[in-house]
Amino acid sequence: MFLSGRHIRYVMFAVVALAVFYFISSSSLPLPGNVVSKITPGTQEPDGQDKQDTPAPAEESEKPTSQPAAQPPVQPASQLANATFVTLARNTDVWEVAKSIRHIEDRFNKDYHYSWVFLNDGDFDDTFKEITSNLVSGKTHYGKIPREHWSFPEFIDQDRAAEVRKEMKQKQVIYGDSISYRHMCRYESGFFFRHELMNQFEFYWRVEPSIEYFCDIPYDPFRFMQDNKKKYSFVLSLFEYKETVATLWDSAKKFMQAHPEHIAENNNLDFISSDGGETYNLCHFWSNFEIGSLNWLRSKAYLDYFESLDKDGGFFYERWGDAPVHSIAAALMLSKDEIHFFDDIAYRHVPFLHCPNDPEIRKERKCHCNPDDSFDWNGYSCTARWFDTAKLEKPAGSQKKH
Amino acid sequence: MFLSGRHIRYVMFAVVALAVFYFISSSSLPLPGNVVSKITPGTQEPDGQDKQDTPAPAEESEKPTSQPAAQPPVQPASQLANATFVTLARNTDVWEVAKSIRHIEDRFNKDYHYSWVFLNDGDFDDTFKEITSNLVSGKTHYGKIPREHWSFPEFIDQDRAAEVRKEMKQKQVIYGDSISYRHMCRYESGFFFRHELMNQFEFYWRVEPSIEYFCDIPYDPFRFMQDNKKKYSFVLSLFEYKETVATLWDSAKKFMQAHPEHIAENNNLDFISSDGGETYNLCHFWSNFEIGSLNWLRSKAYLDYFESLDKDGGFFYERWGDAPVHSIAAALMLSKDEIHFFDDIAYRHVPFLHCPNDPEIRKERKCHCNPDDSFDWNGYSCTARWFDTAKLEKPAGSQKKH
Repeated sequence: MFLSGRHIRYVMFAVVALAVFYFISSSSLPLPGNVVSKITPGTQEPDGQDKQDTPAPAEESEKPTSQPAAQPPVQPASQLANATFVTLARNTDVWEVAKSIRHIEDRFNKDYHYSWVFLNDGDFDDTFKEITSNLVSGKTHYGKIPREHWSFPEFIDQDRAAEVRKEMKQKQVIYGDSISYRHMCRYESGFFFRHELMNQFEFYWRVEPSIEYFCDIPYDPFRFMQDNKKKYSFVLSLFEYKETVATLWDSAKKFMQAHPEHIAENNNLDFISSDGGETYNLCHFWSNFEIGSLNWLRSKAYLDYFESLDKDGGFFYERWGDAPVHSIAAALMLSKDEIHFFDDIAYRHVPFLHCPNDPEIRKERKCHCNPDDSFDWNGYSCTARWFDTAKLEKPAGSQKKH
Repeated sequence: MFLSGRHIRYVMFAVVALAVFYFISSSSLPLPGNVVSKITPGTQEPDGQDKQDTPAPAEESEKPTSQPAAQPPVQPASQLANATFVTLARNTDVWEVAKSIRHIEDRFNKDYHYSWVFLNDGDFDDTFKEITSNLVSGKTHYGKIPREHWSFPEFIDQDRAAEVRKEMKQKQVIYGDSISYRHMCRYESGFFFRHELMNQFEFYWRVEPSIEYFCDIPYDPFRFMQDNKKKYSFVLSLFEYKETVATLWDSAKKFMQAHPEHIAENNNLDFISSDGGETYNLCHFWSNFEIGSLNWLRSKAYLDYFESLDKDGGFFYERWGDAPVHSIAAALMLSKDEIHFFDDIAYRHVPFLHCPNDPEIRKERKCHCNPDDSFDWNGYSCTARWFDTAKLEKPAGSQKKH
């Protein structure tokens, strides 16, 4: 009737191993089975939205709450940016999403009350809506992804796509055999910013389940982006798995030739190519964190880029991720100074952490992350390269290798 | 130059496995090696305090900070209890302690600014003091444990104690071969409340590194204890490992016979014994969370109890934990109604979670824990037994077995 030390250790390893496997295999990503069962003709609303746009019970008010934690915004609503948090999730992600919301609210949004849009390829259930709307201090919106944004385009050869998944599974490429992961990457690359619920906003802050923030954010990053004419931002960067983007650069070059008018004068080609544009060096901004301009993603330039890539089929014939797709777009079509590195936003998505090296920042922002665990300045990160190619001075302590 | 999916998985499992091992083997517990090196004649201040009582640089003010998170107390200082948080830690625990502080501040102390006492068998370094004093919204105190409270009493037979550790190691009893763990258990059982820095306070809230709180605490649990004449409280209970307390009950019975005057009229013997006092059923309150009365622990009754147990040598000849020692004391020497179960405080110490079953509480307190993960009402918990023996009605939903 009582646990032995070994039992406890077994329990802990089991729990943790399951958690880790969950992160790797399905965090915020519908599993193939779910998707197949969810995306079946007949269960789909014609417009894919009406059902979800009727507000959830807890969704109607701004909820100035009676909790001691609730505070008035530090700036009047009139000074807020036209912006929203956005999270792609399934009902089963609810507790991981709840953890992420707590981190964002504790460190930032409890003082600003920005809105939060939740998107799902299925229908959100009442539990998901109640728990998340109760934790978000701003207004919450729940949207269903239209089937045409989460399915195979008619120009994709299903047999060829299936063959690729089989090969990638044999090669043990991460998510290599997943259909839903490919739909997710394509959706984040070309559609989330066009969702009906997103049309009203100009800026977005992407949040995934089970992420963590480690420092207070005592200013408004949305307003920072707006006031400083930034279009895209990041906190972590790394190298993509080559097998997943074998022909992505060929496709990008094809686009550049077809649309030279979309290439920015002061672009940062050198961040993504180490040989003047001949090949892709696999560097990309880690897109599970993004604060960016929706108007840029909805611009003709970006849409031409996405359509061109999409037609080449690499989302299904390879396994193009939304991170390299966004990063290549930002590097080619934005001016260097339109991309921002948020050094003062301490952020963790398993297994990587960004923690500011500057002790003054960590003290002022009440950070609780260990800078020695920060991923930024080691050989697996592209952040040093970004500073070099953007001709910017690296933050204090960034020379320190971890 | 880039990570493969498998590499990432290896990294994650390694990191997580190390973290788990860290929790199991050393969270807040100095390892034998460290202790031996720390507790050496000459490094010890005569009074063990002067050095640490000089305030750390960041320790001098109550720090009403300029961060948006900083709020005035919800009740004037005059209405606060005379109470403190208390954490036993080493310098190497600093980031795990920082995480715990964030949880307490976010969910409670940012509105109350209670003090925090940190105790260490060695000297706290400036990094530990700076990081923790920066995160605690109240006043911080750093104390060194006097050697006489963290060493073998002269009446202990060192050879016999060493033999026991050898046997327990062979039997794979958790911490069975650890000297420092035994010093820690004895210290938490009989000395922390007598530390010079604790003498000024009437109530304590024990906090260990890397613990988590999942719900807002919109009232003052210290005042609740004081106003309702509570002396001891818990959120999790379970069964002790029999090997570690083989003769603890014999020792407790000896004390009861020697000091019948200390046994409470309305005691809760039935919580800790299922056969009217013949044997110990191994039930105990999990003492890594405690809100309790320091005056009770400093009372003649409790001190007589501790001295009696201590003389029997079980802290070293077995491996008595402070949890069963505190629990037996509370069950025998306190009236049932002086012990409180904080159902509304959602708390996790690896590997166990308490999350309120009542959806209304979880909603009102903005909880982000999954009640299905709550440990309370399954066969390994003694909490149901406590409600039965205290003749109290179980919280809503507690019949639900997980």
